[in-house]
Amino acid sequence: MSIGEKNLPIYGVIMAGGVGTRLWPESRETRPKQMLHVIGEGTMIQNTVARLQPMIPPERVLIVTNRKQIEGLSSQIPAVPRENFIAEPFGRNTAPCIGLAANALLRKEEEGIMVVLPADHHIENVREFQTRLGVAARVAAEKGGLVTLGIRPTRPETGYGYIQWDRSKEGVEEFYDRGVRSVRTFAEKPDAITAQRFLDSGDFLWNSGMFIWRASSIMQAFEQYLPDLHGQLQQIEDSHGEASYDQDLERVYKQITSISIDYGVMEKASDVYVLECAFGWSDVGSWDESYRMSRKDSDGNLLLGEVVAIDTTGSYVKGDGRFVAAIGMEDCIIVDTPDALLVCRRGQSQDVQRVVEYLRRKKITGLL
Amino acid sequence: MSIGEKNLPIYGVIMAGGVGTRLWPESRETRPKQMLHVIGEGTMIQNTVARLQPMIPPERVLIVTNRKQIEGLSSQIPAVPRENFIAEPFGRNTAPCIGLAANALLRKEEEGIMVVLPADHHIENVREFQTRLGVAARVAAEKGGLVTLGIRPTRPETGYGYIQWDRSKEGVEEFYDRGVRSVRTFAEKPDAITAQRFLDSGDFLWNSGMFIWRASSIMQAFEQYLPDLHGQLQQIEDSHGEASYDQDLERVYKQITSISIDYGVMEKASDVYVLECAFGWSDVGSWDESYRMSRKDSDGNLLLGEVVAIDTTGSYVKGDGRFVAAIGMEDCIIVDTPDALLVCRRGQSQDVQRVVEYLRRKKITGLL
Repeated sequence: MSIGEKNLPIYGVIMAGGVGTRLWPESRETRPKQMLHVIGEGTMIQNTVARLQPMIPPERVLIVTNRKQIEGLSSQIPAVPRENFIAEPFGRNTAPCIGLAANALLRKEEEGIMVVLPADHHIENVREFQTRLGVAARVAAEKGGLVTLGIRPTRPETGYGYIQWDRSKEGVEEFYDRGVRSVRTFAEKPDAITAQRFLDSGDFLWNSGMFIWRASSIMQAFEQYLPDLHGQLQQIEDSHGEASYDQDLERVYKQITSISIDYGVMEKASDVYVLECAFGWSDVGSWDESYRMSRKDSDGNLLLGEVVAIDTTGSYVKGDGRFVAAIGMEDCIIVDTPDALLVCRRGQSQDVQRVVEYLRRKKITGLL
Repeated sequence: MSIGEKNLPIYGVIMAGGVGTRLWPESRETRPKQMLHVIGEGTMIQNTVARLQPMIPPERVLIVTNRKQIEGLSSQIPAVPRENFIAEPFGRNTAPCIGLAANALLRKEEEGIMVVLPADHHIENVREFQTRLGVAARVAAEKGGLVTLGIRPTRPETGYGYIQWDRSKEGVEEFYDRGVRSVRTFAEKPDAITAQRFLDSGDFLWNSGMFIWRASSIMQAFEQYLPDLHGQLQQIEDSHGEASYDQDLERVYKQITSISIDYGVMEKASDVYVLECAFGWSDVGSWDESYRMSRKDSDGNLLLGEVVAIDTTGSYVKGDGRFVAAIGMEDCIIVDTPDALLVCRRGQSQDVQRVVEYLRRKKITGLL
């Protein structure tokens, strides 16, 4: 990080409103993924705040979340001032969430740069991560565009969106050697054949959902590409500090259309840059992914809790107080909780979603 | 059953002293297999008593068990009079257990015939079972020998002992057509190749561990083949009704050598008969066996409790209050209990024994 970057007024904006049902039965509506120990030292939100240090101190971290989660999150990251928590009455996808945070930031610092991060991702190499954030912040400050972090793919993953970068150096000359690229197009989650083609081409990066821009830049983009949302965000902002704020927020939020920042802005804007990154990233979007990112023993097992494994390989066993015996299991995921148990073949953990749907349909709300 | 058989003074002797760790985590030292619902309507001891009805009414059923189990067993089969429970201070294998019961029976009925049954076996066709018991009782009454039930094998099972019968009709002429055979030899649990040979030969039956004889016949056999035990049983019997009985029983039991009725008597005696049976028998000696004996759904699954199975086949999932989700599992055994969980590949459930050994070694007595 250069001196110049250090002086940039960088803020962290952590999107922490998700429910994260894909890590059921551990994640629940009242115990979302970001509040869980899934991988690494702390809970996911703790790790997300910690890996910004010392670059972005806690007092410059904003947390956007659901009202119901504020207490729980705040108790896990007490260093983040309580006034830095921004409550959404309910989720409306990422664009409104980011808009709320941008306005909050603009109140503090007109030249403020936002580093927008999901609360529930994992990053292996924190030093490299911070270095890339520094470069991205510099691009955002100097060029005024919208920067996203693209992850150099290591496998033909079908679970992520992709970003195709432009081989031309035009417009990014001074940063090209530091991995900054113009964006050619955003691609949805591909099928297996397309994913392999993306991987082989060398032109595609994983869409990490991490963004860096000036707060003023993203507000301009909202004005241009999502004018309705821009107006609604302005209404909310006008009410800030008023006694009626909570009511106004909820009223306006009900009218807001749910839309992602990718679809609403990134795919439409012209001054979009992607920074090529390779710091060991995962969205920890499933038990398979959690297993993949974790350190295994010589049998390929990851055994947590009071577990005895006999003739068992390639398996992830996560106990939770109760004794677990695994015999003859191969490539299996076992996640135990006090009121629900998951036993799943590795590679099929996306079907956890189907269990959650079943519970919703059957109105077994205690397990949601 | 003929009138003659009805008039035979037949008593049931149920050996119920086992611990049954092979069905861990459901079976425990304090909750042995015979007290569990494993297959069928009631617990295993309840089913064992029920399938003798109306042939052997509860007042003619004797239960030999460990002192500690009497309360639990008695509460499950209240129709069996409390005085019919015979307490061993500790187990010494089947021969002493049967000897105790034989003396108790002789006190009631000098001509009494004993039907000796383990408390934890399963039988599909109860009507056929009773018919075979009737034939066996008749043989025991008329010929005065030792009769055992042999099960016509349906697969080359390596988990059971075998009995080879003699093709000669000599000595069993009048009963030959009813499936009564002289015994040629008893064979230990075979290896896979030998088991296949046994199956192919047609001369071998599974050793069921069920016996029928006059109480006086087995006592004579003890006198001849196990004279020490016979003397020790006599000492105990002499103390019957005395205030010192419990003490005497324990003192003598400590001196008794642990020995099975098969090894101590059946393999040595000459007047041994085996009755060929085919009534769907299992010793329910493992979760694999429990699965095999149970009715499965069209996916080959046996799902008990609150279970959702997605893309899962050939599996046995036994919930116990908690919700269980199985995804993509194939040929898997999942047994959930409040304090321990087993997840095991089907075909490997004999290794449950290794888990129990591990718990013993680690002195995790709460789970034993």
